[in-house]
Amino acid sequence: MLYEINEKALRLESEGRKIIRLNLGDPDLATPDEIIEAAYAAMKEGKTKYSSAYGEPKLRAKVAELHGVKAENVVITPGSKWGIFATMYLMLKGGGNVIIPTPYWTAYDLTAKSLGAQIKLLRTEMENEWKVDLDKLEDIIDENTRLIILNNPNNPTSKVMDAKTLDGIVEIANKKGVTILSDEVYATISFVKTKSILEYNGGHKHILSNGFSKTFTMTGWRLGYIIANKQLIDNITKLNQITINNVPVFIQEAALKALEIQNQLSTKVKEEYQQRAEMASQTLARAGFLFTKPEAPFYVFPKRTGLNSEKFTLDLLDKGVAVAPGTAFGDYKEHFRISLTVPRDQIKQGLDIISEALE
Amino acid sequence: MLYEINEKALRLESEGRKIIRLNLGDPDLATPDEIIEAAYAAMKEGKTKYSSAYGEPKLRAKVAELHGVKAENVVITPGSKWGIFATMYLMLKGGGNVIIPTPYWTAYDLTAKSLGAQIKLLRTEMENEWKVDLDKLEDIIDENTRLIILNNPNNPTSKVMDAKTLDGIVEIANKKGVTILSDEVYATISFVKTKSILEYNGGHKHILSNGFSKTFTMTGWRLGYIIANKQLIDNITKLNQITINNVPVFIQEAALKALEIQNQLSTKVKEEYQQRAEMASQTLARAGFLFTKPEAPFYVFPKRTGLNSEKFTLDLLDKGVAVAPGTAFGDYKEHFRISLTVPRDQIKQGLDIISEALE
Repeated sequence: MLYEINEKALRLESEGRKIIRLNLGDPDLATPDEIIEAAYAAMKEGKTKYSSAYGEPKLRAKVAELHGVKAENVVITPGSKWGIFATMYLMLKGGGNVIIPTPYWTAYDLTAKSLGAQIKLLRTEMENEWKVDLDKLEDIIDENTRLIILNNPNNPTSKVMDAKTLDGIVEIANKKGVTILSDEVYATISFVKTKSILEYNGGHKHILSNGFSKTFTMTGWRLGYIIANKQLIDNITKLNQITINNVPVFIQEAALKALEIQNQLSTKVKEEYQQRAEMASQTLARAGFLFTKPEAPFYVFPKRTGLNSEKFTLDLLDKGVAVAPGTAFGDYKEHFRISLTVPRDQIKQGLDIISEALE
Repeated sequence: MLYEINEKALRLESEGRKIIRLNLGDPDLATPDEIIEAAYAAMKEGKTKYSSAYGEPKLRAKVAELHGVKAENVVITPGSKWGIFATMYLMLKGGGNVIIPTPYWTAYDLTAKSLGAQIKLLRTEMENEWKVDLDKLEDIIDENTRLIILNNPNNPTSKVMDAKTLDGIVEIANKKGVTILSDEVYATISFVKTKSILEYNGGHKHILSNGFSKTFTMTGWRLGYIIANKQLIDNITKLNQITINNVPVFIQEAALKALEIQNQLSTKVKEEYQQRAEMASQTLARAGFLFTKPEAPFYVFPKRTGLNSEKFTLDLLDKGVAVAPGTAFGDYKEHFRISLTVPRDQIKQGLDIISEALE
């Protein structure tokens, strides 16, 4: 349904309709010029050849330094999506099940299905601040559980996991011998302090997925990385060798430049999204929606009791606003997801139309 | 062994040794400036966002036009390797076997193994001009055969399949209801006329894999495509949505530019490689090697009776020349592969050292 809405929005636009696009996590901000210039310079220097399936040594070293690990624990991937797919492919193609808290990012579920893995959903509720119920988690782990996938901060709720819950999840996973894959792609630009899975990683058992898309507005560049124990990194690299081969070196050079200007950039990005989230929260609260306040970019996941989100989403699109139905993220038909990835005046206009539609 | 040799060559170089690199199919020629400028212009125009997992409409349309198919039959992939993996993943993850003539490109075999598919190798011999034996092919097809993979022109032999043999293979595949995946990445710059699998594709059953790497010296850009029936294209696109998402749009814009200058470029590339192949053939013949004359870039696959190619390759590396052992392409321990992807003076120097080493 997520992709269907997007295709319909694109079709309406191609027919000349003006659509306010609140349905995708693709920031309106442009990739900074310095990053583009770094890519161009690298191309001109001839960095257009095959290269290592691990990623460029300089970029691996820089990422390792930022996370306090060794370069051998880092593999560069064409987008964090690829890192997540590769990890799931290697850990689940032989069978077994994966635990995914809901609401979830659609790709986890679709990937598990594509791999033929059994999926165990672990429902969380807005009314309980989207907290994972530790007893339930312990109950559904069995001897075939290969992986728990966390998304922290979460898409679609923009909720950051509280430290106590995360401590509890890791404790259970360690006790049961289950690996955690933690997708922390929104962490660098989170509005509140987040705890990384790497803080628990004495035994190098758990896995971090991260990407450059959100922090550096580089969505279309396709660049991310996995941090894990050397064995998994080597295995992902072997998979890279028979699939994507390597991320273009000029794109990795652009990423190096991005990391150089990370602090100045992430502060700016964070501020902008925090203001958008504040504004959206006020408007949605006034209109009587229920939601938890965003603690990270880019989303709000409001609820209206009795809503049929798929019908609502399609009707809303005819009124010129694209959002994502709650059902795209699990069994949440009273919710819908708003992406705050357009300029503020458009967000305001979109929220007004949404509020009217539900009056 | 292919990757091991490459890693060792890189290590020796990093220690300051001069290595003549005849082991990789990565052309020494630079990516043409017009292509780089097209990518840069696209970045500056903001073509740095998420985009369609099918590929850009303009590029799909152009590729379709070149091959005489519809745009709906084309999906753009990050390298032809990804297109081949995606096709094999979709056709083999449910089980079944794949027929691969040898000598083969290593990735076919590694991919089938990674997917847990049964591999049926179909041996061809230099002494028989590397021709597929049609009776043997018919014999090894069974009810679980899902795919036959052809590589035409072939890596490592640089042999183009004669039309009669290809006719015969397609006839058998059609009779038995087996799909052919034809990797034709060297076809555009072949020295002799090649017949594409698409010429047989009235029923849209068979699949073409192609890429921009070899023709446009764009190896590190990671850009290729699959042409197939709409259903497979849609399924590869769904796999793209949960893996690579999309090829960066600015890279696709560079590819469009490449196709505009294709004729002038491929003629130049072809001429250069034909001269290198001619020179290498003369030297190798004088030194008493047995081989079939290259009919396409970039390789020669000579034989010396009694050779232990892995030992020879490792010893040769210590003498400053990297080649690939025949065993990297199947059971060909009396062969080794030379890539003619360095300037002519280096090829000459490398061949002299090879000839000496075997005197």
